[in-house]
Amino acid sequence: MNFLEERIVKDGIVKEGNVLKVDSFLNHQMDIELFEKMGEEFKKRFEGKEINKILTIEASGIGIACIVARYFNAPVVFAKKSKSINIEGEMYVADVVSFTHKNANQVIVSKKFLGPNDKVLIIDDFLANGCALQGLISIVNQAGATVEGIGIAIEKGFQLEGNVIRNMGFQLESLAIVDSMDAATGEVKFRGQ
Amino acid sequence: MNFLEERIVKDGIVKEGNVLKVDSFLNHQMDIELFEKMGEEFKKRFEGKEINKILTIEASGIGIACIVARYFNAPVVFAKKSKSINIEGEMYVADVVSFTHKNANQVIVSKKFLGPNDKVLIIDDFLANGCALQGLISIVNQAGATVEGIGIAIEKGFQLEGNVIRNMGFQLESLAIVDSMDAATGEVKFRGQ
Repeated sequence: MNFLEERIVKDGIVKEGNVLKVDSFLNHQMDIELFEKMGEEFKKRFEGKEINKILTIEASGIGIACIVARYFNAPVVFAKKSKSINIEGEMYVADVVSFTHKNANQVIVSKKFLGPNDKVLIIDDFLANGCALQGLISIVNQAGATVEGIGIAIEKGFQLEGNVIRNMGFQLESLAIVDSMDAATGEVKFRGQ
Repeated sequence: MNFLEERIVKDGIVKEGNVLKVDSFLNHQMDIELFEKMGEEFKKRFEGKEINKILTIEASGIGIACIVARYFNAPVVFAKKSKSINIEGEMYVADVVSFTHKNANQVIVSKKFLGPNDKVLIIDDFLANGCALQGLISIVNQAGATVEGIGIAIEKGFQLEGNVIRNMGFQLESLAIVDSMDAATGEVKFRGQ
């Protein structure tokens, strides 16, 4: 097990319905030293890529993205979730359906902050059904920018979206891929174990 | 002028209605090197305070809080905005009215992540009418924790909330206090100039 898998085993909580709660260190309380290890690891995995922008989505992607950005010396842009488009200046817009909240949102990024010269590393905390990620990829494409890589903390491997994205040729690196969870025993199985 | 005031003059945009847009470096695209300077500066201003937790509020406070947290070796907790309370486990709840969006929200923090032993530094990007900050202070008080300090990037000094909070005895440190703005000329005047 790597450092993140170990932490999930130690502090993650498995709940019914394939819910993995990691709010004590990842997405409500945030362990900055852990995020730094994640930054180091992403830097290794995307070695040789020229990355000049980190793209994430509010809210829980922002903290990880900001720490990871230190390892790439790049600014972070976060996509905003919006129910109604507030077009002040021009925005890239993509539709996103939330797995957790079962609602549809739009995500928006100002055109000022993403353009054809940008080589983008997308960062997020979770990859489940991948809708947020699809929205971010759509926005990078709308901008004429390039997705150099996708770095995810925790991927739910039993949902197929990660494979779909890899099959399309993206370098998708998830630090922990959960292949199965058992709410009764609390056990989490990771890919490669 | 300090480094943040200089950046505001260089890249901030003044709009009608006392709106200061700083989305190219602070709250949509985020300049991580700038955030590191802010972390260094807050570390100086809160020297001698024992801080073991950083509290902020989604979304635009999170990035700054995570970088600032590196200078205090403390985890970050971010308050979530919620229209309807989703009480899974017990939550601290406070009411917040958004200046920008003219709506009322609740902010919530899990009771797991804030308690009587916590010495809290509150971090946020903006202080205007202060409602978000009042909500965060309320949550710290509900937890029986202590507000050791409040670190703000940009305070709108022409709104009185900052003074109210200082008068109550909190150490409120704003890196740039805007005393007036002129949308016609684009000029920004800072306190102490």
